[in-house]
Amino acid sequence: MTTMALAPLSPGATIGVLGGGQLGRMIALAAAPLGLKVHIYAPDAHSPAFDVAAERTVAPYEDETALAMFAESVDVVTYEFENVPAETARLVAQHKPLFPGEKALATTQDRLTEKTFLRNLGLPTPNFASVDDRASMAAAVAAVGRPAVLKTRRFGYDGKGQTLVREGVALDAALQMMGGQPAILEAFVPFRAEVSVVAARGRDGGFATFDIVENRHENHILRSSHVPAAVKPETAASAIAIARKIAQALDYVGVFAVEMFLVDGPTGERVVVNEIAPRVHNSGHWTIEGAATSQFEQHVRAIAGWPLGATTTRGRVTMTNLLGAEANRWRELLAEPGTAVHLYGKGEPKPGRKMGHVTRVE
Amino acid sequence: MTTMALAPLSPGATIGVLGGGQLGRMIALAAAPLGLKVHIYAPDAHSPAFDVAAERTVAPYEDETALAMFAESVDVVTYEFENVPAETARLVAQHKPLFPGEKALATTQDRLTEKTFLRNLGLPTPNFASVDDRASMAAAVAAVGRPAVLKTRRFGYDGKGQTLVREGVALDAALQMMGGQPAILEAFVPFRAEVSVVAARGRDGGFATFDIVENRHENHILRSSHVPAAVKPETAASAIAIARKIAQALDYVGVFAVEMFLVDGPTGERVVVNEIAPRVHNSGHWTIEGAATSQFEQHVRAIAGWPLGATTTRGRVTMTNLLGAEANRWRELLAEPGTAVHLYGKGEPKPGRKMGHVTRVE
Repeated sequence: MTTMALAPLSPGATIGVLGGGQLGRMIALAAAPLGLKVHIYAPDAHSPAFDVAAERTVAPYEDETALAMFAESVDVVTYEFENVPAETARLVAQHKPLFPGEKALATTQDRLTEKTFLRNLGLPTPNFASVDDRASMAAAVAAVGRPAVLKTRRFGYDGKGQTLVREGVALDAALQMMGGQPAILEAFVPFRAEVSVVAARGRDGGFATFDIVENRHENHILRSSHVPAAVKPETAASAIAIARKIAQALDYVGVFAVEMFLVDGPTGERVVVNEIAPRVHNSGHWTIEGAATSQFEQHVRAIAGWPLGATTTRGRVTMTNLLGAEANRWRELLAEPGTAVHLYGKGEPKPGRKMGHVTRVE
Repeated sequence: MTTMALAPLSPGATIGVLGGGQLGRMIALAAAPLGLKVHIYAPDAHSPAFDVAAERTVAPYEDETALAMFAESVDVVTYEFENVPAETARLVAQHKPLFPGEKALATTQDRLTEKTFLRNLGLPTPNFASVDDRASMAAAVAAVGRPAVLKTRRFGYDGKGQTLVREGVALDAALQMMGGQPAILEAFVPFRAEVSVVAARGRDGGFATFDIVENRHENHILRSSHVPAAVKPETAASAIAIARKIAQALDYVGVFAVEMFLVDGPTGERVVVNEIAPRVHNSGHWTIEGAATSQFEQHVRAIAGWPLGATTTRGRVTMTNLLGAEANRWRELLAEPGTAVHLYGKGEPKPGRKMGHVTRVE
């Protein structure tokens, strides 16, 4: 790949997206008004993003031939999930620019690498320690204390692969829940609220953030996002400074989210970084109606090498996920003036499955 | 087609769209967030709407087999241009509900039928008379007076198939420009401004209109639309009452536009109907950012049998078409904060071709 390949895209160009879920779908819906085509690559033939894509590849992420053909057919590649296999990313990047780059993926796919990266940047994280076996588990608990959360280092999302280690919990039992996978023990953070910063960094290093978001979770799944967040201006500024530092250190291109805990301490409220999502994020869906530019358009602008868009918030915004059968309320929701309804075109409304979301701007 | 077929659509259903231009493209982009799939039927394999459609048929509008297969594969059919051949509409409607219906198409495809329909409803139109040959041309000019506009009855758009008959113009020469096609002579209306009403009627007869739009044309092509229009409230109310009456008389389902002339007369300003577009309309593009629901979403809601959305205007809105090479300014436009850029994914920026539009909401 030569420097030539890093020229900005022109309208008519094609963005390749690894992953075919609702995030890929909303990226495609944002790319089209900008005159860009999208080629979705996903293993599942029923991927919701296929419905709005100019080109489709149905193949496993390990299919080197399909990946090479995909990469050759597009002008730039991005992804909608952080668990893109490293080998997939490497292969694609041999053919075409990959944004966000391999460093962002490698850093955020592994919780231990991620937390170490954050600590090395001097950013606030919970105490943590690596856990591989009984001995390191005992050492980790001694170092981190209880309560703590034991998490698999890789492939966790929406609370999967996590267990709380309270006072009295048998360490062996907790360890067994990791199924032999490498893990990390993180100090439990007694947070008052959860917030996130959704921001973008352009190819030229330009940075633009949306307003800080307050997030409410239920059963480890995002329930709703609220803007403005109930945080002090200086807290918001410090959260945004953290996000900017992360983006610079990763030489990041695209939209990303940093999830943080809001903690009350002796010196007032402060944020502690929980995790980085190297992609558009559920806590940024409110921007479709609630901000001057949506996170999806912003991501497209960033990876295209285009100017980032304005990020002004348009009012008081609430985004609520439609989980499982809640999406069956679509008709009632469509009848509410001022409620923007988003349905993801997924088949089965399994419990907890993100089927859509609604946004209200007041 | 049984009454059963007229049940409201459910998410996951497919809308068939005849026509693959930017209007079909923007209908598809509005249908997806509502969980609906779109199947685009168009003769040109390079149709911009294909890029965002779940299903595509490339076939002529006269291909009965392809039309039947298309209609059988979808749940409801609509169209993005008013010149759908009557036989095409009839064939499709044998299989699936067609919205807007055949009456809307038949009435608006022929300027003489359309003007007669309007006059029969008691609505203000320019004087007009039918022109088929030299004799009827002479009679028409005697009845309508000069200046007048001679137009082909069918297939005219953006000023094509029109000629101005001023004092001194040879009638034979004007008639020759019609190329032997049936024509209509309409009195020239000395308008102060051009306005349009973009509105929707639901399957249940519910009616919702966007704010009246002021339109500026150049070389018969829409240059820009402005909301609010500089008209008196009672003028706006009378324009909207006209649109409602038209929709009821056509038993209309979907979004439509009524283009009108704003005329200053001895009794103050008034509107005169120019023409009806039985589809989403260029003068409604401002609603994407400028109204609570876009005209495209509104059209989808109407034909799906769903509740119509709120139509509140969000501020002072200007929509400007990007014609031909103007779209080459995309990079500069993308860098303007507050400018929403829409590019239609068309190949050649031929002079006057609608390549995209920009919208500003203040």
